[in-house]
Amino acid sequence: MKKYLLTPGPTPLPPQVRQAAAQDIIHHRTAQFQKIFTEANQGLKYVFQTQNDIFTFAASGTGAMEAAVVNLLSRGDTALTVEGGKFGERWRELCSAYGINTEVIKVEWGKAVSPEEIKKRLNSSKKIKAVFTTLCETSTGVTNDIAAIGRIVKDTEAVLVVDAISGLGAIDLKTDAWSCDLVVSGSQKGLMLPPGLGFVSVSPKAAKLVASAQSPRYYFDFRLAKKALDKNDTAFTPAISLIIALNQAINLLKEQGLEKVFLRHKKMAEATRSAVRALGLKLFAPTAASDVVTAVKVPAEIDGEKLVKTMRDVYGVTIAGGQSEMKGKLFRIAHMGYIEEFDIIVCISCLEQVLLQMGYHLELGKAVAEAEKVFAKKE
Amino acid sequence: MKKYLLTPGPTPLPPQVRQAAAQDIIHHRTAQFQKIFTEANQGLKYVFQTQNDIFTFAASGTGAMEAAVVNLLSRGDTALTVEGGKFGERWRELCSAYGINTEVIKVEWGKAVSPEEIKKRLNSSKKIKAVFTTLCETSTGVTNDIAAIGRIVKDTEAVLVVDAISGLGAIDLKTDAWSCDLVVSGSQKGLMLPPGLGFVSVSPKAAKLVASAQSPRYYFDFRLAKKALDKNDTAFTPAISLIIALNQAINLLKEQGLEKVFLRHKKMAEATRSAVRALGLKLFAPTAASDVVTAVKVPAEIDGEKLVKTMRDVYGVTIAGGQSEMKGKLFRIAHMGYIEEFDIIVCISCLEQVLLQMGYHLELGKAVAEAEKVFAKKE
Repeated sequence: MKKYLLTPGPTPLPPQVRQAAAQDIIHHRTAQFQKIFTEANQGLKYVFQTQNDIFTFAASGTGAMEAAVVNLLSRGDTALTVEGGKFGERWRELCSAYGINTEVIKVEWGKAVSPEEIKKRLNSSKKIKAVFTTLCETSTGVTNDIAAIGRIVKDTEAVLVVDAISGLGAIDLKTDAWSCDLVVSGSQKGLMLPPGLGFVSVSPKAAKLVASAQSPRYYFDFRLAKKALDKNDTAFTPAISLIIALNQAINLLKEQGLEKVFLRHKKMAEATRSAVRALGLKLFAPTAASDVVTAVKVPAEIDGEKLVKTMRDVYGVTIAGGQSEMKGKLFRIAHMGYIEEFDIIVCISCLEQVLLQMGYHLELGKAVAEAEKVFAKKE
Repeated sequence: MKKYLLTPGPTPLPPQVRQAAAQDIIHHRTAQFQKIFTEANQGLKYVFQTQNDIFTFAASGTGAMEAAVVNLLSRGDTALTVEGGKFGERWRELCSAYGINTEVIKVEWGKAVSPEEIKKRLNSSKKIKAVFTTLCETSTGVTNDIAAIGRIVKDTEAVLVVDAISGLGAIDLKTDAWSCDLVVSGSQKGLMLPPGLGFVSVSPKAAKLVASAQSPRYYFDFRLAKKALDKNDTAFTPAISLIIALNQAINLLKEQGLEKVFLRHKKMAEATRSAVRALGLKLFAPTAASDVVTAVKVPAEIDGEKLVKTMRDVYGVTIAGGQSEMKGKLFRIAHMGYIEEFDIIVCISCLEQVLLQMGYHLELGKAVAEAEKVFAKKE
């Protein structure tokens, strides 16, 4: 059975990336690898829209998030975290593991954080050294307004940290123009790679904290990473095959150009939302819906876990269910990375067929038609 | 130009592994991946020769070493480290980063540690909670006598930690029979994979320390890893493609059987040492020479860095130079993982030709003949 993967990470791999990952291995302390690594670092700057240093770790996204926390803060410091889903919570858990106090902005799942709320918190607590946010909260399908948050944080002593694991390379994130001090990302989403690489960009404002932070660290130490990067090297053995594949993925993004890549994601998201509405289903995040993943409420009469399982096991179409408190109550369709227009058509077609089978009332083809209408629109 | 890689990590990839790494990606929270992960965990137990839990991290070997340190010890604890090369030093650096005191056994580079010395230190300092050792010190080509060290440490309160990044799956390491509490390894050496996976096995004796250790940790937290492993899962997104490839690599080891795999490495090492002696060159570690990498002293009249560079850039044969204080003074030939007998012949042939070119006196073919004699010996 042909397989279709529409999960918010990992996302499918383009053939060029798969081919690159299958190349003979080369040694990393060679001019040959240095050339590849230089290209990777330049390519990452293009994707991150930054002139800042970007450190690459052999780790998944959570490792890169930990790197952000331990390189900025010390035990007893105070951070502000925004919790509107599972990944926002991870910032607090990480801070807590390192003895860092957190002030928490609780955001109702499915809503975006109000930048004004962040402003209020920063004004009322001068102790806050870092603000930890999420570009796209994968667990709820919400995109936060990082540009607005950046305008607020840049005028304070605090640094802005953005978890862009979900979203980078798929929706707009202007690291420099939006004053994002640390941007954290991973390989298996918009960057269309297997999981195993974590990235962190570091602004000059944040570099001062890196120099003074007392949290213990070694593998994720930016000071070691910076020393190595300045010699076009990595502090420890890099995930060579993934870095070779990274260059192929970035080439694909460059060929299309970020503007067009973002537009493609926007149209796929619109098509998905239109189709979902045509089915009479409700979006979980109607006001701040992300262009990388659409979260849909499971109707009361339908078994959400069975829906996801049937699509996957009977039809070969893998979408995601709900996480944590949303288990069984949501399904999530990713439209990110190497997922393109006809993958969305396939997914909606499958959703129609499985929902009908499960006794949900619908007219076959109607939701697909709505998706097509979006794709057929001229720019 | 055809390339030959004989470096002590990364080592070349078998075609089955490359092919597996190039497969379509699958989602990790599925029955499909769980089956793969179960197989990986069973396979790792075979290679580690253990019944202990083995945790797999998306990280390179140093990440797994950090995991060992932070999960066993707390700030102010005391550890014993053995330093006979660059990787032994890394244990001290890691402990130091986490505020853990170290007693250090300095071993002359090129020598193995005396197990008696470890016994003496453990007897004289009851504070030592963990002994950090290295199976094969890649920087010097020395293999330490872990079996003897295990017999000593098991009768104390301390736990034995073995860095087997270089050596696991290539030379014998009986995790359980030798009482190794934590064995740390990585993917890019004996396991014949690209770098990017780190492994740690944990004994019941060590598990008690894991429960009480106060070092801050999250990404590498064994408590989270254990909770996930018990559900046949990983705490954070695993390096999916590398785990798929891992099963292929372990299958290759199983097909041959560990005994024969170890014998192959032993013969390659003997052949390399015989050839080196036939060239009139000196082994750096004549008394404790490792079966995974042979370190050779660069003769006074030869530029060691140029030797390595010429072999690589002119002939396509990549070996390693010396590291840290041994830069330019050593070259190192790996015979580990997917490096086989004829790779050694190629390497020795290349070495003969380049040494001759550089003005070193030798008779072409003589060293190759010595290697052949070893390979031609009947068991």
